[in-house]
Amino acid sequence: MHIILFYELFFFSQLRKAQQGNERPKDPKLWPYFQDGLRRIDYVLTYHVQKPQSTRKQSSKSCLCCKFRREQSNPPAHEDPELAAQEQRLDYHDDDQRLRREEFEENLREMGLEMEREEGNKIPGVGFLKIHAPWEVLCREAEFMKLKMPTFKKYEVSHGSSIVEKVNMFMQKVTAPLQPNVGENRMENVKHLSYPFSREKMYVILILSLQILYEEWASYSIFYKYQPIGLIRKYFGEKVGLYFAWLGVYTQMLIPAAIVGVIVFLYGCATVEDNIPSMEVCDERNNITMCPMCDRACSYWKLVTACGTARASHLFDNAATVFFAIFMALWGHYLFPLFFTFKLVLSPAYVGNCFLCFSQSHPRAEYEFHVMKKSLKKEQSPKVAHHALTICYILQTELPIGFTQFLEICVTLAIVFGVVLYRVSIMTALHMSSTPTFRTNIRATVKTTAAIINLIIIIIMDEVYGAIARWLTIMEVPKTDKSFEERLIFKTFILKFANAFTPIVYLAFFRGRIIGRPGKYIYVMGSYRMEECAHAGCLMELCIQLCITMLGKQLIQNNLFEIGVPKLKKMLRQRKIDKKHQEELNKTLHRHEKDHFLGPFVGLNPEYMEMIIQFGMVTVFVASFPLAPLFALLNNIIEIRLDAKKFVTELRRPIAVRAKDIGIWYTLLRGLSKVAVIVNAFVIAFTSDLIPRLVYQYMYSPDGTLHGFVNHTLSYFNVSHFQPGTEPMEPMHLGYKVEVCRYKDYRDPPWSATPYEFSREFWAILAARLAFVIVFQNVVMLMSDFVDWLIPDIPKDISIQIHKERNLIVELFMKQERGKKYRNTIGDPSPQPLRSRPSSQA
Amino acid sequence: MHIILFYELFFFSQLRKAQQGNERPKDPKLWPYFQDGLRRIDYVLTYHVQKPQSTRKQSSKSCLCCKFRREQSNPPAHEDPELAAQEQRLDYHDDDQRLRREEFEENLREMGLEMEREEGNKIPGVGFLKIHAPWEVLCREAEFMKLKMPTFKKYEVSHGSSIVEKVNMFMQKVTAPLQPNVGENRMENVKHLSYPFSREKMYVILILSLQILYEEWASYSIFYKYQPIGLIRKYFGEKVGLYFAWLGVYTQMLIPAAIVGVIVFLYGCATVEDNIPSMEVCDERNNITMCPMCDRACSYWKLVTACGTARASHLFDNAATVFFAIFMALWGHYLFPLFFTFKLVLSPAYVGNCFLCFSQSHPRAEYEFHVMKKSLKKEQSPKVAHHALTICYILQTELPIGFTQFLEICVTLAIVFGVVLYRVSIMTALHMSSTPTFRTNIRATVKTTAAIINLIIIIIMDEVYGAIARWLTIMEVPKTDKSFEERLIFKTFILKFANAFTPIVYLAFFRGRIIGRPGKYIYVMGSYRMEECAHAGCLMELCIQLCITMLGKQLIQNNLFEIGVPKLKKMLRQRKIDKKHQEELNKTLHRHEKDHFLGPFVGLNPEYMEMIIQFGMVTVFVASFPLAPLFALLNNIIEIRLDAKKFVTELRRPIAVRAKDIGIWYTLLRGLSKVAVIVNAFVIAFTSDLIPRLVYQYMYSPDGTLHGFVNHTLSYFNVSHFQPGTEPMEPMHLGYKVEVCRYKDYRDPPWSATPYEFSREFWAILAARLAFVIVFQNVVMLMSDFVDWLIPDIPKDISIQIHKERNLIVELFMKQERGKKYRNTIGDPSPQPLRSRPSSQA
Repeated sequence: MHIILFYELFFFSQLRKAQQGNERPKDPKLWPYFQDGLRRIDYVLTYHVQKPQSTRKQSSKSCLCCKFRREQSNPPAHEDPELAAQEQRLDYHDDDQRLRREEFEENLREMGLEMEREEGNKIPGVGFLKIHAPWEVLCREAEFMKLKMPTFKKYEVSHGSSIVEKVNMFMQKVTAPLQPNVGENRMENVKHLSYPFSREKMYVILILSLQILYEEWASYSIFYKYQPIGLIRKYFGEKVGLYFAWLGVYTQMLIPAAIVGVIVFLYGCATVEDNIPSMEVCDERNNITMCPMCDRACSYWKLVTACGTARASHLFDNAATVFFAIFMALWGHYLFPLFFTFKLVLSPAYVGNCFLCFSQSHPRAEYEFHVMKKSLKKEQSPKVAHHALTICYILQTELPIGFTQFLEICVTLAIVFGVVLYRVSIMTALHMSSTPTFRTNIRATVKTTAAIINLIIIIIMDEVYGAIARWLTIMEVPKTDKSFEERLIFKTFILKFANAFTPIVYLAFFRGRIIGRPGKYIYVMGSYRMEECAHAGCLMELCIQLCITMLGKQLIQNNLFEIGVPKLKKMLRQRKIDKKHQEELNKTLHRHEKDHFLGPFVGLNPEYMEMIIQFGMVTVFVASFPLAPLFALLNNIIEIRLDAKKFVTELRRPIAVRAKDIGIWYTLLRGLSKVAVIVNAFVIAFTSDLIPRLVYQYMYSPDGTLHGFVNHTLSYFNVSHFQPGTEPMEPMHLGYKVEVCRYKDYRDPPWSATPYEFSREFWAILAARLAFVIVFQNVVMLMSDFVDWLIPDIPKDISIQIHKERNLIVELFMKQERGKKYRNTIGDPSPQPLRSRPSSQA
Repeated sequence: MHIILFYELFFFSQLRKAQQGNERPKDPKLWPYFQDGLRRIDYVLTYHVQKPQSTRKQSSKSCLCCKFRREQSNPPAHEDPELAAQEQRLDYHDDDQRLRREEFEENLREMGLEMEREEGNKIPGVGFLKIHAPWEVLCREAEFMKLKMPTFKKYEVSHGSSIVEKVNMFMQKVTAPLQPNVGENRMENVKHLSYPFSREKMYVILILSLQILYEEWASYSIFYKYQPIGLIRKYFGEKVGLYFAWLGVYTQMLIPAAIVGVIVFLYGCATVEDNIPSMEVCDERNNITMCPMCDRACSYWKLVTACGTARASHLFDNAATVFFAIFMALWGHYLFPLFFTFKLVLSPAYVGNCFLCFSQSHPRAEYEFHVMKKSLKKEQSPKVAHHALTICYILQTELPIGFTQFLEICVTLAIVFGVVLYRVSIMTALHMSSTPTFRTNIRATVKTTAAIINLIIIIIMDEVYGAIARWLTIMEVPKTDKSFEERLIFKTFILKFANAFTPIVYLAFFRGRIIGRPGKYIYVMGSYRMEECAHAGCLMELCIQLCITMLGKQLIQNNLFEIGVPKLKKMLRQRKIDKKHQEELNKTLHRHEKDHFLGPFVGLNPEYMEMIIQFGMVTVFVASFPLAPLFALLNNIIEIRLDAKKFVTELRRPIAVRAKDIGIWYTLLRGLSKVAVIVNAFVIAFTSDLIPRLVYQYMYSPDGTLHGFVNHTLSYFNVSHFQPGTEPMEPMHLGYKVEVCRYKDYRDPPWSATPYEFSREFWAILAARLAFVIVFQNVVMLMSDFVDWLIPDIPKDISIQIHKERNLIVELFMKQERGKKYRNTIGDPSPQPLRSRPSSQA
């Protein structure tokens, strides 16, 4: 029902022309002009031509959505061709489409657009409809859209007080080599005043020209440079520009995080020798006999054998980690949105441009179609094929707003919950101690294998979840394109996020916690005992899992999905054409015909989704893996240029869409950073040993140091209390008879009045852990609110600039008015002539 | 340096005229017109006339701020006359002022305004400058301000699907008697399309007329009706309209809260007989001997004597209270802002009007003055009188943005902290058990007296803090009027809030907690022992304090400050005039001369501040006082009409100011509702006995009921362990020898291995309390985020309406354009004539 059903769209304007001005082909037929060589092609629609003879008639009722205004004032840019193709299959009436095309074209003509048709000339089966928008139409639409345009009037931008200005100047000089070679990107003290386009005030409007993107953006060799955001925005539209601006700022913000992360890691490496708890574990003199790690097959073991794990754990579990978690929580909670707002708004490309623009939401064609269907059904007999669907739609549209959203969330959460349960049980099975005689050396290998298997599952499930989310959202029939997109994103995000984080959450909070105690272990599925962590080893396993997920996901998704798949698709598309003619064609093909073979622009959502999952990895579990920001940074530096290359060379040019912000992604980011605060609080409080160490040091230690901490964390178990059949087969494994063994928990000793009950220390430490969570969460929240309050919504510079612009505009028009009066008196009432009209320059 | 320094302002326009149209005085001189009887008075400036002869010259440098645009496009409305008077004292140069006035008037004249002077005609010493804004000037300014005006074009407003529409219709019928008798307020299906004012498009603009406010708003007899917000907004401007809309919605939202609160209170009353813990306390058979409440003078006592307190405590500390706290946390956290947004935006007065308008911030005149001073000082020799101040300003303006704000907050917090310490020590002194032989009966009296003393301190300190906040903010020299106001509000709020809540926080979280234990009490100031709460009595004391603070503060502030003080001021102002002439004058005085005796409009901040402190009382400690919403509701019903009366009859008409929201007050409300969540979590967890009861029931109770709970909360103390000199003087007071007494705490008994240490139960209950805080806080946050997400920022109806309006505007202009072309062809190029020009109707 959508325009995309009977046309494929691509936008083609002055800009691409200007970019390739130097290599203009000699044959004037290859220029982007109509046959007359005068009217420029602004827009090209393509469609499939199959049966040009058939002329069956069809009712025109279904052309409800063909009204010109929607396609005209803001064409549907981000429509997904997959979806379109799906529905194409559903009702494929070629003739009907031809009629609809004619009606649509009639509407366009009525709006004042000029068209030229080109059917199956060189590429068989493909028709092109070239559209030229005359200058008057452009002006009228610009006025209706209140498009802000730069004017001739220039003014100086002051950068606050003299100190601020000096700092700015200095920064400008330092970052000069990092700036792309695009004049416009430099911080200029003189700006063009901008004003909403108005035909009455046209004499002040100035039209700018452009330079080349390819060299200064889509190249790996300039990875250290800033992106030419202004150019990107002008060429690809605000939505794409915003994505790259956001990505750039995010990557830039990762630099300090990565540096601090590396420092924290190095600090861990440096202090591993001075760490009292791991020294105590490794000390042969502390002759501590531990209880067996599994029933029957395992035997007692010496704590000193866990020396390696204990030392490795220290790398990720030290005082600096706590500091880093706080740092990253704050980073994620406010530094990120703060710099985001600042940079975007302050960057010259954005100042005063789409700053207050208001994005509209169009009613979705599918929704309109089904509302129509429904009303038709009410009138006539119910002969609609898709019964269940229709009923569903009727239900949906009749129910109040909140309820459907509630239902949808319930379904999503149910799926997430079910899959989490399933995955946790798989994880449990993977981690169950099934090997009777295993050594600690093999352990790491097993864990790594488990992590890799997990990674593969994650990548496969990602695709499945994407499909489920789409299906669920289509079932809902949201009213507008915007709400369709938002709901789809939200569901996809929930599912993919749960997918990526389930194993991590399991490792962080469940593993080694629900194991029971010696003599009373918890068994699942009959006789499988839940596996313990190695001494202080859960954090390390979490680390391995995070490391592999991050590296693997990024490598595979980047290389395979982002580079490989598009190339494959392009090859497939070109193979349709006869190979012999291909080279020949390449020489004579028009620009728009060549572009036909490029991939369609499928929206920015996959890119955003990838980045946001990465952001989750970087912030949510950062307490357990301080190198995460570094990995993310390395990935993103490549990612920017990769995406740039894709946009410049692989994809058809997307239709420029106005956008005032990154929309729902911002909401998700804010949500993630909130989740990150609480998760990090819990990781530090419960997964790391920080709180027990502190409590020991200040409440129980005889000398105020950590000496004796390891002994304090180990409870006593009388081996005679083993359940029958679970005692070790080789009790003399260590060479002596064991009467009391130790295990890691805070429980009363066997000789107390309440043997094996949780001890007073257990509750005290639990209280301390919980208090830490409360303090951490509220301190971070308070700090972030405080900074939010310190930083105004609209940066001061901007608000001063807006104020200044407003006054200048008023002054300008006041002057103009007086001038007009004067001119009227001396008999020259006409406004100044236009400076330039680009389409007449040709 | 401000316009307010040499003029007093009041606005006088068509609207007031229209309102009093029926009682138009017969003498045409009393009409609000210039002497010629044709040009209407739009604006009146008054000034003091003292030495009309002196003509000393003064440099015109200091007229930096006299530029027409500031005063013209948006006059400074909310300037405080107190501040003005203060500065007036600082540099009082009458002649200088006259010169400045002349320059200012010259600027006005240049802008096209017409003026008429009237000096000391009837009221000696007062000059009036009447200003008439010709139609052309009004149009020009309206265009520059992009004022949205209704057009002739009407369209239907659809209220969503049929169900929603029916519900709306039903609600409309039910609330019909509650609507004020103002036609416009009814929900209309047909709306006027509005469009930013433009002279080119003037042919579509429509001018509306108005009705009477007094009867339908400022009357106590219609307290049950909605307010005619549309009229209020039109007459007093958006800022005042927003205040009353907000107040109305807040009061309306208090109704469910008050109802639930009363139900919770009644539930407490009804279940007091079935409450096991208080039954156990009151049971004579549980012969529990308690340790003395004070050293020496007090003796052992029977728990049964605390029966009354225990029963009273149950009224406020039961399961329903917890439910109510959650309810109110959610109410405060999202229901309130939610309904706020909805109601305001949906109310017909607001739709599409100032919905997206952007309030400017003017540079503050004081700031400009001091920047100028500073630069003068740099050039010339430093001969400025206010040395310290100037240095301060220089420092302030030179420092980066964040630092001064940080400093300011530090100062504010330091003051708050100091005063809190001081107050807590006073509270401690008041609560110290100084009376040697006191009875529990006297107790309540003592507490009530303490609460009343506190109340008086709060009210006195409120005024002091207001002055401190103002002084601090003036010291800062904020750059713009808006930032001045915001900073002042923020500081005043922090100080007043701390003032009102310090005693409550002390009672809720500190009293009875830092007392030590029998045999090892904590002593302050040598020998004063911290006083315990009566058994389960802290919550009740908190209740009494809250009740008295709320009732007393509202009664005294409403009656004394809001009614009494303005009346007094008016009397004083009128006493300046000779009493003999007064009646005589009253007959012949012009409208604007009469208005001169009304109080000036001093801004809405005191009203907002009062309401926000009340909102704090209602939400922050609601867990301990469920009747708070009821009290607030009763107060507000009076408050609305009181404020209305004040605005209609007591004050000069404020200058209409555009406002898109309630500004910083919204931020403060959001902040308060966040604080409320965490405070309520702590009140339930730590002040109430809910968690200990639950822990006992599920962990320790032998039969799963609360039987034995009282015994469980009491620890044992061996009387031989009293510190020497602290044992009771009359050990045989109860008639038998006491060997072991009980006290309320979770400590090990004297016969255990660790006597008097915190027991395992203590830590377990502490952990449970902390866990409750985490769960409560995060559940409420999650729920509120979820609802925030469900409810779009811009309600759907509004966004559809905006979309519709936009399309209609486009269609309208398309049609107009075609019509124009047609007319051009047949030779009639002139636009349609104006419909009406109000000032020419006279």
